Amino acid sequence: MKAIKDVFELGFQNKFLWIQFNREKDANPFSRTLTQELIKVLAEAELDSEIKGVALTGGINRSFSTGGDFNDVARLSERQEVSEYLNEIIDLYQAILKVTKPTLALVDHYAIGQGLQVALMTDWKIATQRAKISMPELKNGVACPLGALILETLFGRASMLRDVIGCSMLNIESARMSQYFEQIVSDAELFSTGHKWIERILEYPEVPFRLTKRIQNRRFIQLLEDIRVDAAEAHIQSILARTGQAHFQKILNG
Amino acid sequence: MKAIKDVFELGFQNKFLWIQFNREKDANPFSRTLTQELIKVLAEAELDSEIKGVALTGGINRSFSTGGDFNDVARLSERQEVSEYLNEIIDLYQAILKVTKPTLALVDHYAIGQGLQVALMTDWKIATQRAKISMPELKNGVACPLGALILETLFGRASMLRDVIGCSMLNIESARMSQYFEQIVSDAELFSTGHKWIERILEYPEVPFRLTKRIQNRRFIQLLEDIRVDAAEAHIQSILARTGQAHFQKILNG
Amino acid sequence: MKAIKDVFELGFQNKFLWIQFNREKDANPFSRTLTQELIKVLAEAELDSEIKGVALTGGINRSFSTGGDFNDVARLSERQEVSEYLNEIIDLYQAILKVTKPTLALVDHYAIGQGLQVALMTDWKIATQRAKISMPELKNGVACPLGALILETLFGRASMLRDVIGCSMLNIESARMSQYFEQIVSDAELFSTGHKWIERILEYPEVPFRLTKRIQNRRFIQLLEDIRVDAAEAHIQSILARTGQAHFQKILNG
Repeated sequence: MKAIKDVFELGFQNKFLWIQFNREKDANPFSRTLTQELIKVLAEAELDSEIKGVALTGGINRSFSTGGDFNDVARLSERQEVSEYLNEIIDLYQAILKVTKPTLALVDHYAIGQGLQVALMTDWKIATQRAKISMPELKNGVACPLGALILETLFGRASMLRDVIGCSMLNIESARMSQYFEQIVSDAELFSTGHKWIERILEYPEVPFRLTKRIQNRRFIQLLEDIRVDAAEAHIQSILARTGQAHFQKILNG
Repeated sequence: MKAIKDVFELGFQNKFLWIQFNREKDANPFSRTLTQELIKVLAEAELDSEIKGVALTGGINRSFSTGGDFNDVARLSERQEVSEYLNEIIDLYQAILKVTKPTLALVDHYAIGQGLQVALMTDWKIATQRAKISMPELKNGVACPLGALILETLFGRASMLRDVIGCSMLNIESARMSQYFEQIVSDAELFSTGHKWIERILEYPEVPFRLTKRIQNRRFIQLLEDIRVDAAEAHIQSILARTGQAHFQKILNG
Repeated sequence: MKAIKDVFELGFQNKFLWIQFNREKDANPFSRTLTQELIKVLAEAELDSEIKGVALTGGINRSFSTGGDFNDVARLSERQEVSEYLNEIIDLYQAILKVTKPTLALVDHYAIGQGLQVALMTDWKIATQRAKISMPELKNGVACPLGALILETLFGRASMLRDVIGCSMLNIESARMSQYFEQIVSDAELFSTGHKWIERILEYPEVPFRLTKRIQNRRFIQLLEDIRVDAAEAHIQSILARTGQAHFQKILNG
């Protein structure tokens, strides 16, 4: 299928749309273009009757995604820009939840911040034993209302506090105990395990799966919608306070 | 007390109404009659001041319940029938949650699908070491909006995805780690452990227990109500799509 | 800083307001005065730009708090009094959640009932290895709508049932497995670990932290508000039914 340079490659395997992020850097940072293109492709995949599900991956020997692209974020300065940026991210999470077909995330190396949040929007998350995850926003001076809502919905408020306030990097054993992933495999087995899952899920009759998922995800989509305005405002205020930029500038300046 | 042939036996032990499912088969499938009669008996138990709580069990050496009765489900074809069937199941779950007196489930062998969901509506679940549980609806072509809502409420969205999408059969160790049961005992001790729990809970003063439970269960009852129409529609569409019947027919012909 | 005799001592360390309960007894029961004064101090701390966070502790070799003061509760008899008492407790929990600065609980020995609930309202809970916790209200004839809501929000409905219906005393290992505490240390290290956490959290930029926390805590504050009237009524009915007093009277009479 088509490939959008330095954004993602699209494949079609096992009746699944296979989306592999291919940013120039192995870290696969989430650029605005990646977010925007992914929203479009997901909406098309939901409507395309040939496509029976969607797999998201950063590839093997590359990170799933280390989060928002510092270059994009560092460039944000006006209220309107920040608001658009944040609203696109909410649109992306809702776009994944609105795919009523099975969705799969295959995670090698790092899934951090927005990268982790994208993986957590899917139905089934498979990680390699060397995968590491983190929700480090608050430590880095970035507001984290979406991450907090997502972790509380998946794991309850106690786990959310531990990871969103704690901002620690979790290795795969900690991630497993916290139920971040349904399956953990060697990096050599990541894709083959993903394909086995796809083959299994494709045996499930389609109608009840999709109708169940639509009902179940509606509340989560609404919870994200409920904080849309305030989440955007939190990011605007944080960036205007220059906390974000100061941090990113430090990193960019290495 | 009375027994309704091939539905359940009612006993009165330790001031608890003791409801033992006694469908002809050891699997104790949930027939519409069982659902309907249980709703009535639970409403009466809530009002009867002699009854201080309710225990549900499939007995020992029998399954708690392997879920919806294939014969009933296979017979459904008209929209109206499916809608009534599904609405009765929601009524049943709400009826258990509306019992403000202590409720107990004693589980031997299998608790599957609707059977598991019924057990999970009670305050305290005791299982035997050989118990096995599963929420296999999606794999079997049955919509699972109620199971998904119930598991997300009890365990969070992450556990819900693992078990509702995964559709695996969990042995007692997996079920224990996922907190499905408050106590796990040998099959010889199932009833005596239940009676010990009843004796303990009967020492709790009645008024604060019941008022607390009424407040706490109200949100759960409302969540079930919120998906009533859509859940019925999901089951209607799934059954009209024949995915359900095709599966059941295979089993029935099996 | 100031100390309110037999209520708490206020300190200012590491830019944190350090609130140490100092009720006459080592059990640090939660008197109405303690609840009322704490609400005031928390509201002031949120507004005082010198104060960067709040630490709550019962001290070392003393309990964090064993819950509502029996002397206060035993004195309640009129509807209006009980209602005021319960509304103050909800006000306190909301007051802790409304502090958008980092909040910390340092727990030695017992945290029980209202005491445990207060600790659970903070962002980060550190306990000593000898700490023990319990939500024993229902066993003691006290309504527990707040405890039930809090545990369900933090841990899900399954954990809530186990601890609110079970009413067991949990040792630190059980508490750890149930994720009650983010860190568990020796009693000698309790305060130094708290200070290390404060030093770390103070490196987080302030604006994104506070805006994130405000958004995330709003739903929890609203959930508490939603049950305010019914929770007060449950306590009124429970106390009018004398279940509470009978129990407290037994304890008071030793």
